[in-house]
Amino acid sequence: MGSRHNGGASDRAALGNGGAPPVVDKEVDFANYFCTYAFLYHQKEMLSDRVRMNAYYDSIFRNKHHFNGKTVLDVGTGSGILAIWSAQAGAKKVYAVEATKMSEHARALVKSNNVENVVEVIEGSMEDVVLPEKVDVIISEWMGYLLLRESMFDSVICARDRWLKPNGVMYPSHARIWFAPIRSGLVERKENDLEEVMDDWYNFVEDTKDTYGVDMGVLTQPFSAEQRRYYLQTSLWQNLHPNQIIGTAAIIKEIDCLTATVNDISEVRSNFSSSIAMENTSLCGFGGWFDVHFRGRKDNPAQQEVELTTAPSKDAGTHWGQQVCTKPELLVQGGKLFPLFID
Amino acid sequence: MGSRHNGGASDRAALGNGGAPPVVDKEVDFANYFCTYAFLYHQKEMLSDRVRMNAYYDSIFRNKHHFNGKTVLDVGTGSGILAIWSAQAGAKKVYAVEATKMSEHARALVKSNNVENVVEVIEGSMEDVVLPEKVDVIISEWMGYLLLRESMFDSVICARDRWLKPNGVMYPSHARIWFAPIRSGLVERKENDLEEVMDDWYNFVEDTKDTYGVDMGVLTQPFSAEQRRYYLQTSLWQNLHPNQIIGTAAIIKEIDCLTATVNDISEVRSNFSSSIAMENTSLCGFGGWFDVHFRGRKDNPAQQEVELTTAPSKDAGTHWGQQVCTKPELLVQGGKLFPLFID
Repeated sequence: MGSRHNGGASDRAALGNGGAPPVVDKEVDFANYFCTYAFLYHQKEMLSDRVRMNAYYDSIFRNKHHFNGKTVLDVGTGSGILAIWSAQAGAKKVYAVEATKMSEHARALVKSNNVENVVEVIEGSMEDVVLPEKVDVIISEWMGYLLLRESMFDSVICARDRWLKPNGVMYPSHARIWFAPIRSGLVERKENDLEEVMDDWYNFVEDTKDTYGVDMGVLTQPFSAEQRRYYLQTSLWQNLHPNQIIGTAAIIKEIDCLTATVNDISEVRSNFSSSIAMENTSLCGFGGWFDVHFRGRKDNPAQQEVELTTAPSKDAGTHWGQQVCTKPELLVQGGKLFPLFID
Repeated sequence: MGSRHNGGASDRAALGNGGAPPVVDKEVDFANYFCTYAFLYHQKEMLSDRVRMNAYYDSIFRNKHHFNGKTVLDVGTGSGILAIWSAQAGAKKVYAVEATKMSEHARALVKSNNVENVVEVIEGSMEDVVLPEKVDVIISEWMGYLLLRESMFDSVICARDRWLKPNGVMYPSHARIWFAPIRSGLVERKENDLEEVMDDWYNFVEDTKDTYGVDMGVLTQPFSAEQRRYYLQTSLWQNLHPNQIIGTAAIIKEIDCLTATVNDISEVRSNFSSSIAMENTSLCGFGGWFDVHFRGRKDNPAQQEVELTTAPSKDAGTHWGQQVCTKPELLVQGGKLFPLFID
């Protein structure tokens, strides 16, 4: 009975039978699946992301000096993999904090991998958890789409400010957001979709007036705005090929995980310039991605720096893919393009 | 930053790149679309449901005596269609309550259809709204999947107990839930899907052990349980054909909207028997649907009773479709089958 606030109908309508988008396999109740967390299925997805796994694995096992005999805090441990690796790399003690019931699976995994004497799984919000000591290392896989979208970096900051020793190390230590102009058939497809949806709407308006005596015409503008926003003004997941990038990529945000504040990440605005080869192609929008680095800290650097990038790649992509803004609001000033974030 | 409680990863992982279900058009950020309410798109879906529209339209305009010169309350008015019809049928005053921002669209629609002198759109929860008077009629389209799943009938009950005159009329007045044994290729498809997912899981476990030194085997049982629940133990939306019904349909719940209490609908349990023609087919599970009726009340009946049924139909289906329990827990006692609701 949870949805009386939306007329009890939105959820089921989202799975409805109309001719309009989104195209959904109606046999599957997506709504519940997407809105409920703590599925092992999702953990498996992340654990199957080779780029992600290799980067964290290498960052730990090629820099054992940061872990051997040290205390480690894993923020948002999920299945517990980073905590287990930290233990395998010689950590003296690992606190693995997880807010969801996934903590129970993490605990089972820790035990079955024989590191229960080192790894302590704690179920709770990072903001509430009290540790018995400060730690040498904070490790976390906190990155969301385009780095900060639905990320939990704020929890990592909280953990760092409360529990990291003054000379402690962050894993990862740095992060960057990139933007580049791209070409893609996506915009055209989305524009076509939108056109179809609007054609369907006009038929609907005519039909509703003729058959049921109610003129829906006044809703045409807001419906069009809603659908335009949905199809063209929301950033979209894409696995771009490098040759879809038609100009120079630019860093629009750099984060030092050791010093960043919640304020630093609450809003990202950036002016940047990009040289676009306009002759043979046309700008479709902007692709955005991120990378993170494991460098240790200046006075206690990594023995081997590791990079995890989600940039367009000919080889294996990541589950993060890239985010494409198909119709960013572009401000052209002095020959420069200024895409604004749309959320 | 809303998802730190799920490790920041569930949403994006749901859209991830793995080989496992659900099959999603990754270009569309479904998660947000499904979880955010008050889309005109959803309203249009419902307003395009002919069976639904015709039933309400007929119930009002073939029973104008219930509306002419009367006061009406529309619970969860959405776009405002039922309130506008009520006004067109001669209502003196219509209170149209809507909890979401859809109320603004309803207000525009009311005005552009020239009934703003009759229809008052009120944004708020039905539980909180205070009306200046009691009403003659409560009308509402409150039905969810299988009638009660995510329905807002509890809000209707609340409205009735607070605002309906002692001799007032409920639109609809009655509701029923039906179940019938069915055959369907769905179960086999879902079982195949599940098998593929588990094969993929075993590869994943082997791979993670070989490549990353962590044995995930202990999670095989919970993963299997999670996936089994997802594929086989959750009721699924289906648009069944009547010839998929292989036994007699049974009413498992009857509701008198004038007298039903929240207790009556908080849990539905029913024993029923069904004769199944077993020779040529095999039982795949149970299909469930509902119907509602517009009969007025005994001392003030409808001039023409109207039925809205979501039963399997050769002709137009409804956006509600039917719900199929592919693997209900069946208790066979004395030759009877007892499917249990699974939610």
